[in-house]
Amino acid sequence: MNSSSITEIARQSRLAARQLAPASDAQRNLALAKMAEALQAVRAQVLATNAEEVAKARAAGQTEAMVKRLTIDDKMFDYMLSRLKKVAQLPDPLNRILTGHTNPAGLRVYKKSVPLGVIGMIYESRPNVTTDAAGVCIKSGNAVILRGGSEALQTNAVLTDAMVAGAVVAGLPQHAIQIVRRPGHEAVGELLQQDQYIDVLIPRGGKSLIKRIAEGTRIPVIKHYDGICHLYLAADAEPDKAVALAVNSKCQSVQVCNALETLLVDAECAERLLPLLDEAFTENGIELRGCEETLKILPGIAAATEEDWSSEYLAPILSVKIVAGIQQAIDHINHYGSGHTDGIVTQSLSLVRQFEEQVDSASVMVNASTRLSGGGDYGLGSVVGISTDKLHVRGPVGPEGLTTYKWVAVGDGHLRD
Amino acid sequence: MNSSSITEIARQSRLAARQLAPASDAQRNLALAKMAEALQAVRAQVLATNAEEVAKARAAGQTEAMVKRLTIDDKMFDYMLSRLKKVAQLPDPLNRILTGHTNPAGLRVYKKSVPLGVIGMIYESRPNVTTDAAGVCIKSGNAVILRGGSEALQTNAVLTDAMVAGAVVAGLPQHAIQIVRRPGHEAVGELLQQDQYIDVLIPRGGKSLIKRIAEGTRIPVIKHYDGICHLYLAADAEPDKAVALAVNSKCQSVQVCNALETLLVDAECAERLLPLLDEAFTENGIELRGCEETLKILPGIAAATEEDWSSEYLAPILSVKIVAGIQQAIDHINHYGSGHTDGIVTQSLSLVRQFEEQVDSASVMVNASTRLSGGGDYGLGSVVGISTDKLHVRGPVGPEGLTTYKWVAVGDGHLRD
Repeated sequence: MNSSSITEIARQSRLAARQLAPASDAQRNLALAKMAEALQAVRAQVLATNAEEVAKARAAGQTEAMVKRLTIDDKMFDYMLSRLKKVAQLPDPLNRILTGHTNPAGLRVYKKSVPLGVIGMIYESRPNVTTDAAGVCIKSGNAVILRGGSEALQTNAVLTDAMVAGAVVAGLPQHAIQIVRRPGHEAVGELLQQDQYIDVLIPRGGKSLIKRIAEGTRIPVIKHYDGICHLYLAADAEPDKAVALAVNSKCQSVQVCNALETLLVDAECAERLLPLLDEAFTENGIELRGCEETLKILPGIAAATEEDWSSEYLAPILSVKIVAGIQQAIDHINHYGSGHTDGIVTQSLSLVRQFEEQVDSASVMVNASTRLSGGGDYGLGSVVGISTDKLHVRGPVGPEGLTTYKWVAVGDGHLRD
Repeated sequence: MNSSSITEIARQSRLAARQLAPASDAQRNLALAKMAEALQAVRAQVLATNAEEVAKARAAGQTEAMVKRLTIDDKMFDYMLSRLKKVAQLPDPLNRILTGHTNPAGLRVYKKSVPLGVIGMIYESRPNVTTDAAGVCIKSGNAVILRGGSEALQTNAVLTDAMVAGAVVAGLPQHAIQIVRRPGHEAVGELLQQDQYIDVLIPRGGKSLIKRIAEGTRIPVIKHYDGICHLYLAADAEPDKAVALAVNSKCQSVQVCNALETLLVDAECAERLLPLLDEAFTENGIELRGCEETLKILPGIAAATEEDWSSEYLAPILSVKIVAGIQQAIDHINHYGSGHTDGIVTQSLSLVRQFEEQVDSASVMVNASTRLSGGGDYGLGSVVGISTDKLHVRGPVGPEGLTTYKWVAVGDGHLRD
């Protein structure tokens, strides 16, 4: 393949997007069903191809965590199919009349949701992003260009070929779903140049990948940066619930963006709660790093440095700080946090109100694990990621996050005075 | 002033934004009323200061068009005050519950509109942007940093001081509205560095200004690029209406982004309509440039070149093309247009449907002048501009365009399995 082929892929996507835009919800849902059927028909091929790539990754000395993320077993494959079915069941994000108005002269104006157009997905190893992203894009009437990690290229190609076949059976254009098959950074570089054809890029992966893409393109980027997530245990926090929520937020999975990184404990309940928390986290193999005040109650743990407060560990480490009341907790979160997911444990409605109003984060959790912030629990069915941007889409990015709108003004020869 | 003062302005805006976020709609509306009152009290000072700056601009040999844009007379001042009052009357864009959901485990999730935070407005001469932008920002609970053109610096300073005094009377923070008083490009350059404090930049002015800003900052930018606007006269277009709409779209004001630049005439009505159009445009002093087919009917006009189809003239020139049916019109618009405002003249519902679905533009006008695309006629009260972006906000940018949302999830000890 030569350089022009990436441009050709992008151009074909733009044409496909134009054909896709008027497709009805029924047709898009039919396509999602046919995509799932076509995938089911190549299950054995997907698993075999993936097993080969997993073996190669192992042989190349990749970490067990990376190999795990690369692997599709039967359970994972079922999950991927179920997400396609789930996204089809969502309400149509398109052609909603978002607002309307008749002006004094009788001009009728309305604002209607429409697809963004062409979405470029650039992601690392996890092959389930291939089916998730295609599902969300088709549901929202967008054409998608997929660019997964090289280590999953064959798996992603088999998945994509099946999805394309399914979509075509339902009457969608051939190029509604495309994959970049050329490995290497150069192909990504060319993709970043296609601002004429691509409406938005969504990179999924490490901070450095996202930064490299955001800085290397004129195409708008929906960014998924880190989650430095906090949980604030208010003075009245009920001990059992507080411990369970803190442990679940941190330990249910440590390597994910909505895992807890800093625990804020109100000074009024610190003496009561910290020993219980220490015991629970120790049992779960978590290393605690405390502020000066915390160390007075838990002298056995390590001291947190300034750097700890702005660290996304993605590891079994948790920083702990005692705060003098809710305002200090909110100020700490707004200063050190990443605006991803932050929670409070309390029974006080007025504390909840203050926390919810003042914490400037995509997700505010009240008496709920930070791990519950995400598309599934928010009713979005399937998502392409969790945006840390404030513009356009914030938090989980489902089908609605991939729409824009147009204004339609209907007159009868209306002129401007 | 030194370099750190721009950072200090930005930092103060961030703090003000945090205080402003919980302000009620009543309080924000009161502030808008007090701002208008305070402006009214300094009317004479505004007009005198502006007259000095207008005289300076004239003496410096500025064009009459530029001087006109700079001038505030009593009528313009009344208009500026009326816009502040109008924006106050709009529904509250904040704290709307945009969507909600209870998940099977009983976690209650809702999505609530909130301010973006800190808005940076960078604009050229027109001083009415100062009051319009402040009005839209305060209505939507955002802090704003204003940076107008050097030629209007004193006028803008008087306007801003009055608005700040009014806002403070209503209990809003002192730094909710700020202006950069240091002239020169360097101050703008420093503003572009404040990604730690500023959430979005909105440049208003020429294409080169917008491009320079978009490329020189990591802060998200809401862009206002050119309008290469089209009007398509379908085969059934009623001659009187078609001519009136074409003339109004082009001639009501030629120097604005929603003025007509290319007229598309269906081949079936070209022989009937073109002579009428030629006559009307000639009367209005408009130069026509036609495609080959047009020249066969109007041999007296100039020939359009390929460059004409992608030109935003902002001048009394209009390119004219005969198209073989609606699909060709749509394809021309999607290829050469800028996605700003494009219209159709027809009585056919099915043509309207096709045009509305397939034209990929922020505003689609049906039997209405392209000049009617904008915040006033769309019921937005007051706007900070007309976005040509597809992400976040498209078309006129009113208070709602300056909001984002947060997700709030309320549980009762809900954990992730």
